[in-house]
Amino acid sequence: MLPGHQPGFELDRRLDADSVPLMWLGLCELRLMDDRRWPWLILVPQRPGIAEMHDLTPLDQAMLTFETNLVAQALKIETACTKINTGALGNVVRQLHVHVVARNIGDPGWPGPVWGYGVREPYRTEDRHAFADRMRSALATQT
Amino acid sequence: MLPGHQPGFELDRRLDADSVPLMWLGLCELRLMDDRRWPWLILVPQRPGIAEMHDLTPLDQAMLTFETNLVAQALKIETACTKINTGALGNVVRQLHVHVVARNIGDPGWPGPVWGYGVREPYRTEDRHAFADRMRSALATQT
Repeated sequence: MLPGHQPGFELDRRLDADSVPLMWLGLCELRLMDDRRWPWLILVPQRPGIAEMHDLTPLDQAMLTFETNLVAQALKIETACTKINTGALGNVVRQLHVHVVARNIGDPGWPGPVWGYGVREPYRTEDRHAFADRMRSALATQT
Repeated sequence: MLPGHQPGFELDRRLDADSVPLMWLGLCELRLMDDRRWPWLILVPQRPGIAEMHDLTPLDQAMLTFETNLVAQALKIETACTKINTGALGNVVRQLHVHVVARNIGDPGWPGPVWGYGVREPYRTEDRHAFADRMRSALATQT
């Protein structure tokens, strides 16, 4: 069993298909959305059966905030983006997951949201690995 | 000066135009988006010059999470909606604000995000007051 993995937790199939694992945080698995249009990370709390943030325990809510903001800060510094967009929607995938996306003036869909915009464009494998490595390093210096 | 209001804080003009004050929480002013297409609340931390959640102090980050989840839970219970959508984008309005929206299968734009979808449809005044009263009561029983 991987560290942080909770018995009974299974990653949603759609999340599994659209993103790749990047690293484990305390509560969440951090994943990289395989869409080269935007630098886009996803935090998935390893808790089974949770759809809404307010259904987490108070401690888990605090942990999720801490981890989300840590990731947001690292992503902002690493990409020098204009604005971080965070969101927890779950209209399509009900399993609780938090998006952290680096946005820049003039990027696809700007200034609108990324969710539901156009069609996902997977990275070339080496580019995805390079970005994942950059983010892992950026997060390692913060934690 | 209103309770919770911090010297130097001024509400962004666009937020002021699109939403109305609902109540004061500890850190945030809670506002009601004047758009009858979705039950939509906005939390605005009363801190000047903050654009990103991770630029708040750790204590303010924890407060914002607490208040956001309190509001989300009350909105979900009160509206019996399918899913809560939360988001902090700020691509148009840079002042930090957190959206909490009640979504239902088949509502305008479902399952896409509300941001940037179509044109805002203001409430009739009496309907807006009625919804604001309902939410104030729902929050009063939680706090």
